[in-house]
Amino acid sequence: MKYKMKHKTISLLIPVLFVLYTASFAQTLLPSARPNAAQQALIKRGYGMFIHFGINTFADVEWSDGTLPVEKYHPTQLDPDQWVRVAKEAGFRYVLLITKHHDGFCLWNSRYTTYDVAASPVKTDIVKAVSDACKKYGIQFAIYYSLWDRHAPSYREKDPQRYINYMLHQLTELFTGYGPISELWLDGGWDRRPEQWGIDQIYKLVKKYNPACAVSVNHTIVNEEGKRTFTRPSDMTQDNRYYFQYFPSDFRLWDPQLITKFDKKQYLHEGRSYYLPFEHTLCISKRWNWFQKSEQLPVRDLDELEELFYWCTDNDNALVVNVPPDNTGRIREYEANAAIALGKRLGLSPHKPLPRNGRFISFNRPASATSAWPAEKDRYDASHINDGKLDARWASKDTLASVELALDPAEAFNKITIFEYQDVKGLSDGFSQIRIPRIRKYSVDLLPPSGEWQTVYLSDEPMGDCKVIRFPKNYRARKLRLKILDASAPPSINEICVIRMPEGR
Amino acid sequence: MKYKMKHKTISLLIPVLFVLYTASFAQTLLPSARPNAAQQALIKRGYGMFIHFGINTFADVEWSDGTLPVEKYHPTQLDPDQWVRVAKEAGFRYVLLITKHHDGFCLWNSRYTTYDVAASPVKTDIVKAVSDACKKYGIQFAIYYSLWDRHAPSYREKDPQRYINYMLHQLTELFTGYGPISELWLDGGWDRRPEQWGIDQIYKLVKKYNPACAVSVNHTIVNEEGKRTFTRPSDMTQDNRYYFQYFPSDFRLWDPQLITKFDKKQYLHEGRSYYLPFEHTLCISKRWNWFQKSEQLPVRDLDELEELFYWCTDNDNALVVNVPPDNTGRIREYEANAAIALGKRLGLSPHKPLPRNGRFISFNRPASATSAWPAEKDRYDASHINDGKLDARWASKDTLASVELALDPAEAFNKITIFEYQDVKGLSDGFSQIRIPRIRKYSVDLLPPSGEWQTVYLSDEPMGDCKVIRFPKNYRARKLRLKILDASAPPSINEICVIRMPEGR
Repeated sequence: MKYKMKHKTISLLIPVLFVLYTASFAQTLLPSARPNAAQQALIKRGYGMFIHFGINTFADVEWSDGTLPVEKYHPTQLDPDQWVRVAKEAGFRYVLLITKHHDGFCLWNSRYTTYDVAASPVKTDIVKAVSDACKKYGIQFAIYYSLWDRHAPSYREKDPQRYINYMLHQLTELFTGYGPISELWLDGGWDRRPEQWGIDQIYKLVKKYNPACAVSVNHTIVNEEGKRTFTRPSDMTQDNRYYFQYFPSDFRLWDPQLITKFDKKQYLHEGRSYYLPFEHTLCISKRWNWFQKSEQLPVRDLDELEELFYWCTDNDNALVVNVPPDNTGRIREYEANAAIALGKRLGLSPHKPLPRNGRFISFNRPASATSAWPAEKDRYDASHINDGKLDARWASKDTLASVELALDPAEAFNKITIFEYQDVKGLSDGFSQIRIPRIRKYSVDLLPPSGEWQTVYLSDEPMGDCKVIRFPKNYRARKLRLKILDASAPPSINEICVIRMPEGR
Repeated sequence: MKYKMKHKTISLLIPVLFVLYTASFAQTLLPSARPNAAQQALIKRGYGMFIHFGINTFADVEWSDGTLPVEKYHPTQLDPDQWVRVAKEAGFRYVLLITKHHDGFCLWNSRYTTYDVAASPVKTDIVKAVSDACKKYGIQFAIYYSLWDRHAPSYREKDPQRYINYMLHQLTELFTGYGPISELWLDGGWDRRPEQWGIDQIYKLVKKYNPACAVSVNHTIVNEEGKRTFTRPSDMTQDNRYYFQYFPSDFRLWDPQLITKFDKKQYLHEGRSYYLPFEHTLCISKRWNWFQKSEQLPVRDLDELEELFYWCTDNDNALVVNVPPDNTGRIREYEANAAIALGKRLGLSPHKPLPRNGRFISFNRPASATSAWPAEKDRYDASHINDGKLDARWASKDTLASVELALDPAEAFNKITIFEYQDVKGLSDGFSQIRIPRIRKYSVDLLPPSGEWQTVYLSDEPMGDCKVIRFPKNYRARKLRLKILDASAPPSINEICVIRMPEGR
């Protein structure tokens, strides 16, 4: 009994000491080639559950314009404890909650607006319920807050400071009323010039109340200082080449894009270089589906989620996966199952570092194809299949095409992942999409160190967004070939990764 | 060193003692309600690799008529050691080799014919090479031999005993020249009346040389004694109801059918009851493909192979999986990979009993559907989805159909397997088939012990021949529903199994 008391006291002390320790470092963002305390904490937590919930959930839309009546918001079985319980069971280390989206509807009882849950038929303070559940389950709490606000009257006033003050008031409510907040995710900055959002004021306020909180604004980085010319995360392969659009930001955001495997961390602001990790966003749904829809949508394959998990977290970056509650106010059971199954498959544990993918042996090895779709420069060349970018691609001109990778025969491998480019069809809501694969039948062939080509894998099933082939043994090869045996159109591949996993994984 | 010698002597003694022990029991098949020694050995080995290889391999056909010239047989990289090495790595416990198919071509150097490998361009004695490799890798050797012979001149003589003598001569070669043979699989009996094959003479000869060898003739069992009215293995749910067609046989065969989960083991001959296990045959290929074809065909899903493994071996029966070498004389790498990956997934080890599936909680629980395809009696009723038969089925009349199973809410489960009926298209070779699924999108919904329906799984990907859904937790439910959300035709389901797997599997 005595021991237990002691243990508890120490447990309580640790976060206090941590806050005291980090307070002296994290107040401002300083030029550095290494992560500061807030960034280290972000990298360490690494894997969060994004929760989109709000008035849009009840209107079957992604965005609304701030005029939906508060009466619309009406969950029938609201259970925020279930959201966080699912997050915990799935091995997420933080929950990132929408507190206010572009529509301006607030998920807490805000003194500064009546467009909030308190004015709705179901008055539960969602921010309180979720932050309480995070304390209960021992996982970190983070918030999303939209800069762009299509409801607040102050937003339309001539002096931008009036709306900035509104935000500062609301963020004070959030940062003083709900315990520690590990991240602030700001969005919608495209609606005004960067300097009109008062980012520095917001940043200062946040750090005053919570020095360890990591702050960022979506589309953090630009190509040219002071201009809105964007660089995609898949192009950020150079240190000190790109610039802050929003300063200060403690990490980079570019929802929902994925970084290059050669992601660099040094970014410039007024001639000085800052370390900036990246936080990715993914939907557990196969379609981009942020706010839950009334139609039940299929979730991504576990194989694909596993590979994307590695892609997004391996390189000292973070990933949030959106698992949105539906209009009953609960996370759907089949989506919870997918998230929990993924966590079990990855062996996630709060006491262990996040697992990493195996060793990639294919990047930038010589690649060639039977043909390439004619386009400017090398846009669809075979070299794109192993350039570490999930958005660049090889596109063939012929339908029964092949693409080859020259490998180092000294390097063993036992896993191949193939990201097929799929045709995307936008749905009528303007956000959702369905993806249509082209490849119907294919083989993976190897040219061994000596001897002839052999087929090591053959399939006539759709690849999904990411096909993972695990071999029961290690191979070595001079060349690897993906051979398309049947397709509905000339095939196109974003990336082929040849990987060596450690024994037993 | 001394200890090692001793250990080796004991190892050598064990099979000798086993043979002496079983010799006294297995000479003849006796009425019994329990397996004899030969049958116990069959049940224990349980999982074998079927190897179809012969002159058909070089003609891209399943059957030939005995007139293909021996020159056709011409493997370029013949490697029987590789066949058995793959079998060993995949966890098979025996190899079942075609020694002569209906075409009469012999895979060994037979004194009694020139239609054999010895007369061909590649004279390797395949029976010797494979039986030697079996000794080398420590796995059992079994043979298939066709009764029906479309080449042997004696087959066409008036007196059937002339051809029987030919078989007895050849079987003497096989049973005296290659070491122990654990099984003799006789096929093609349909071409003559059962009594014209001299089964008793064959059986006696085999047992003389190898008392522990288990012998059977394909289509072992009939509905009425002395008549060729067949009973499908999926109907063998009653003891002492069906009869031997071929007596004596140590086990039942009905290639390539699958038994009912309520398989019974007692069969009648002249008023007495005999114990008879069943040996299944499956192709690793998705299509029925016994002799390898020049076209590379996709293999079955690992999920499906795993469930079929359990289905076929759980109930003291055996399974052989056909993994045929191609016309180079080697097993194809991608097929070897699938077999080895399955063995690893199942954790097969020669030192452990074969693994078993979990506990089924769904058999014969009340089932209902939104509709059934109109047909005589209850042919397509919902009751077929959990009757333990993989060939009986529910067929719906409506396309967006649902089928429900009432469950015992006290019974937990964490796995569901769904065997969708697929339309089968025969290919031009007269044997191969492709299977076309109907269901495009579906959900699995549960009605919990209290509360409302919830969707626990949702997919828009093809089920394959067997869809396995593993849940990350145990469920209990009053009802389970499969709801078809999109289909190309009114769906049909052979079986839905609700299973509880032990922790960690």
